[in-house]
Amino acid sequence: MPAETDEPKLGCPVRGVLDRIGDQWSLLALEALDDEKKRFNELLREIGDISKQMLSKTLKHLEQDGFISRTVYPEVPPRVEYELTELGQSFLVPMRALIGWADRNHAAIKSARRRYETA
Amino acid sequence: MPAETDEPKLGCPVRGVLDRIGDQWSLLALEALDDEKKRFNELLREIGDISKQMLSKTLKHLEQDGFISRTVYPEVPPRVEYELTELGQSFLVPMRALIGWADRNHAAIKSARRRYETA
Repeated sequence: MPAETDEPKLGCPVRGVLDRIGDQWSLLALEALDDEKKRFNELLREIGDISKQMLSKTLKHLEQDGFISRTVYPEVPPRVEYELTELGQSFLVPMRALIGWADRNHAAIKSARRRYETA
Repeated sequence: MPAETDEPKLGCPVRGVLDRIGDQWSLLALEALDDEKKRFNELLREIGDISKQMLSKTLKHLEQDGFISRTVYPEVPPRVEYELTELGQSFLVPMRALIGWADRNHAAIKSARRRYETA
């Protein structure tokens, strides 16, 4: 058994969460659902430059992980609505804090990189 | 020009930040430096199962991005100490909130996945 490894410790919860839903499409979909439940086409319009395929995949992941719920209303044609769960709602709180930090500080990070390169 | 794309919007600050330092080694290194400045070998011992190569790479990235500073003291042998910058310190605040959320909720996410699979 090797004494050292470059593999991160197994089961780090924050990695698991971010690997699954830390991508920008998931974050945009969660934000779009923050104020109200929405249908697929409403999300498609609101997020803007996402493809139908990518939105489907994103919503499926979010549903699998319990961040959103999907309700099918037996109408003709069937109406499908997506809604944040309590889990999804609660995730937005720390995630927004991190996004806010990144917004405020990404210029400082870029400057640091430039300084490092020219040092 | 295609109307749709699966590429996330360019310049999303939070992705840029997390892609660079959202890995577990960077987070562990930042946490290890939270209370005091440390030398390479102290960090190696404290983080535990990281290789020397991976720790070097991690510290270099953190220094490049301005999260830590590296001070070389002209002694024999030279002493090198790593320390959190204000930027690194301020990043730990929202990052810890997110890690705390993941710790509290990863079991709920796992259950959601199991429910989805068996539904």
